[in-house]
Amino acid sequence: MSSKYYAKPLNDLIRALSGLPGIGGKSAQRLAFHILSMSDGDANAIADAIREAKSRMKYCSVCGNLTDTDPCGICADRTRDRSVICVVESPRDAAAVERTGEYRGFYHVLHGVLSPMDGIGPDDINLRQLLTRLQKDDDAKELILATNPTIEGEATAMYIAKLIKPAGIRVTRIAHGIPVGGDLEYADEITLSKAMEGRREL
Amino acid sequence: MSSKYYAKPLNDLIRALSGLPGIGGKSAQRLAFHILSMSDGDANAIADAIREAKSRMKYCSVCGNLTDTDPCGICADRTRDRSVICVVESPRDAAAVERTGEYRGFYHVLHGVLSPMDGIGPDDINLRQLLTRLQKDDDAKELILATNPTIEGEATAMYIAKLIKPAGIRVTRIAHGIPVGGDLEYADEITLSKAMEGRREL
Repeated sequence: MSSKYYAKPLNDLIRALSGLPGIGGKSAQRLAFHILSMSDGDANAIADAIREAKSRMKYCSVCGNLTDTDPCGICADRTRDRSVICVVESPRDAAAVERTGEYRGFYHVLHGVLSPMDGIGPDDINLRQLLTRLQKDDDAKELILATNPTIEGEATAMYIAKLIKPAGIRVTRIAHGIPVGGDLEYADEITLSKAMEGRREL
Repeated sequence: MSSKYYAKPLNDLIRALSGLPGIGGKSAQRLAFHILSMSDGDANAIADAIREAKSRMKYCSVCGNLTDTDPCGICADRTRDRSVICVVESPRDAAAVERTGEYRGFYHVLHGVLSPMDGIGPDDINLRQLLTRLQKDDDAKELILATNPTIEGEATAMYIAKLIKPAGIRVTRIAHGIPVGGDLEYADEITLSKAMEGRREL
């Protein structure tokens, strides 16, 4: 919601902010006025943080996670368990698993799930890279499928399992400790730990 | 909420966003990931809008409202009613009155209210400018006090009324009562008292 009662730069800011998820017209106005009331330094720090994050954050060429180094900090960490790769839908899901503090393996971020209804097939997610990675990687013994327990997440897990199992790698699925229809990102650490712990062979 | 599981530029963005009002840690994360998923153009447009608004929006030297021109569009509008000035606490309040579409006078934005408890006295709000303005302005016949119906807003209105009335200018206060569409049953006692007190003959 912009308004003809505000000057253009303010309206532009309100419009830009109201394009963000969960920010309605009134919130965008409140945020815009708050930003105008901040010191130049503080307000420009937000602008800089956006530009900075946008220009410096890339996807890891190994696992596909968001990172400012390549390979990312996790892929470059030699103390981690090379035998396990956890497949997740998004960088936020990888961060959620990391927060449990119990997983010490690697990740592979799909950036989506198979969804034929939306026209998203195997080539539209970061899946080919997973296969190439597994072909080169002799250390990987287990693939933990931690896609969300949604219809698409389950289907994607099944699809990957079918694809990978012939290669002799153990393929597991996190347990349904997470409520079906819920979101990995919002699961508490204990539930997510339980889910990791209760994984079963597919 | 920032996380050691995110790279620094992402963490910096999350931290910057979580400093905004009404944006908690989870919201800041969701917003940050959304911004990273936007095109460079769209993301940088937000950054630019912040910088642009911050550098171009000033306070009108006449009324104190937020503007990118001086005097502001309202003060410069010769078709408006020069005989009335509406005193409000903030630019958002001025915009709220404008949205009624029924007020055609000018504004004066105080940028706060008197609040001795918080150490905010007459010199800390845009009050001296109002007096100077009224001294120079022979057209102003009525001052509408539209500060909020809070303790501080009421006290500020009383203070301004006392100050201005001797100059022979009509000083009025916006009515307080039951909001249109509101329910008598759920109105608080003070609002209902004000509504009874401000009753008018039909």
